[in-house]
Amino acid sequence: MTLEMVSSNKSFGGWHRQYRHHSETLGCPMRLAVFLPPQAEQGPVPALYWLSGLTCTDENFMQKAGAQRVAAELGIALIAPDTSPRGEGVADDPAYDLGMGAGFYLNATQTPWAAHYRMYDYVTRELPTLLEATLPVSGQRAISGHSMGGHGALIAALREPGRYRSVSAFSPISHPMDCPWGQKAFTAYLGTEQDRWREWDSVQLLRERGAPTLPCRVEVGLDDPFLAEQLGIDTLAEAARAAGWPVQIERHAGYDHSYYFVASFIEAHLRFHARHLGASPQA
Amino acid sequence: MTLEMVSSNKSFGGWHRQYRHHSETLGCPMRLAVFLPPQAEQGPVPALYWLSGLTCTDENFMQKAGAQRVAAELGIALIAPDTSPRGEGVADDPAYDLGMGAGFYLNATQTPWAAHYRMYDYVTRELPTLLEATLPVSGQRAISGHSMGGHGALIAALREPGRYRSVSAFSPISHPMDCPWGQKAFTAYLGTEQDRWREWDSVQLLRERGAPTLPCRVEVGLDDPFLAEQLGIDTLAEAARAAGWPVQIERHAGYDHSYYFVASFIEAHLRFHARHLGASPQA
Repeated sequence: MTLEMVSSNKSFGGWHRQYRHHSETLGCPMRLAVFLPPQAEQGPVPALYWLSGLTCTDENFMQKAGAQRVAAELGIALIAPDTSPRGEGVADDPAYDLGMGAGFYLNATQTPWAAHYRMYDYVTRELPTLLEATLPVSGQRAISGHSMGGHGALIAALREPGRYRSVSAFSPISHPMDCPWGQKAFTAYLGTEQDRWREWDSVQLLRERGAPTLPCRVEVGLDDPFLAEQLGIDTLAEAARAAGWPVQIERHAGYDHSYYFVASFIEAHLRFHARHLGASPQA
Repeated sequence: MTLEMVSSNKSFGGWHRQYRHHSETLGCPMRLAVFLPPQAEQGPVPALYWLSGLTCTDENFMQKAGAQRVAAELGIALIAPDTSPRGEGVADDPAYDLGMGAGFYLNATQTPWAAHYRMYDYVTRELPTLLEATLPVSGQRAISGHSMGGHGALIAALREPGRYRSVSAFSPISHPMDCPWGQKAFTAYLGTEQDRWREWDSVQLLRERGAPTLPCRVEVGLDDPFLAEQLGIDTLAEAARAAGWPVQIERHAGYDHSYYFVASFIEAHLRFHARHLGASPQA
């Protein structure tokens, strides 16, 4: 269980660092990025796990969201894993929405994916265990993400609410069973039997397991080109209402699916998570 | 003189837009990016011209610097041109530090570069004229940049201080005549006669023309791997002191040459420029 540092940049008084390690869960080397706020020099700080969307790596969020400024103020570590296993021997598909860059944060059961595609266990178990043992990050965890990563954050919170203090999402794929991206990925990774899909679908988890205790905020742009076909936000809102889960869903005219949208509202999400994480803002 | 919009993203209540146009100065089509703050809906706003560094396009600053938040607050447009002419028929070199992506913001005189490489005239003349005629940006201009773009911003301010209200730079190549990047580029673009180089060198311009009237701020990271060999910051500081130009040079321990450094201090530069631009902050 060792982390090899592959880059380090000072940022807002803290440190942006990329690490490489061998993942037992995924059976391959993985790179990830961590932002440690200045407060981490005094001891462990709470952490926000950020799950990125299709085609992304650990770099997109760290380079484009502009989250470090507020994370440094609030004393929150940011942790950005990759979006799939990668490397020689890892199954792939030429499409952007399957295989490498498109792990969908689930544990695959189907050939050839099952050998490596276990991103759910990686991001919810192996990674926190590793980081909390080797870096100054505490077990006070929040989780968030964008698009496919918003789906990942929501299912993590709904399946294991005890592991997180709060959850949020930007433009999440909220009901993958009912959209083209999700149906394609779930068929490949989980097989055609739709009963197996339900445990990886936020809307279905809400319907079957009821409201979790942790708070949730969702941000979506009304000019998002994927809003109608892929995201299922209204279905999520209805399932949350039926389950009695007070999800704060914020809809924004004119905003799209890009990191320009994420950057515009990341500060609100960080302050939302900080209220539940017991973070220690700078004096 | 027309601008074709090629992308548009809402960002912090304003708009990030990419445009394409035919540049008469460069003799090729050029792409650029503009951030229009919300205040631009009420009429022309002051503009900060940002000149990027080696290998960059219009995208690096807009995606990585996190400048839109404060620009939206202060009511300043951000304008990010490309770093060289591009396209078929434009001379290039396989190295990253010559040719496309490495225009050095000067007007080349040597074959094969002279035909297209006239970035100085493009960023200081053609582009402001075009944008002020077609977009809600006023003639109140500030100029800034990073590395090669910091050099570009400084020479623009020193050669034509009347065109800008303020100038700033991150990690600028301050004395290109005296560093490997600059000597290689100047030899190619301007020829071997060093007398021709002096009018494109910030330190030399300061020595020969004296202090301009506009204010200047320079930010540099002390762990910048290019600091000693390429940037000439101490020489710039000495030339400014000798000329009586009160340049504010801020040196930061631990920071490097990356956009993680730029992002950490862009807010300070925007607020510096706003004080001289007559911007109209949001109520």
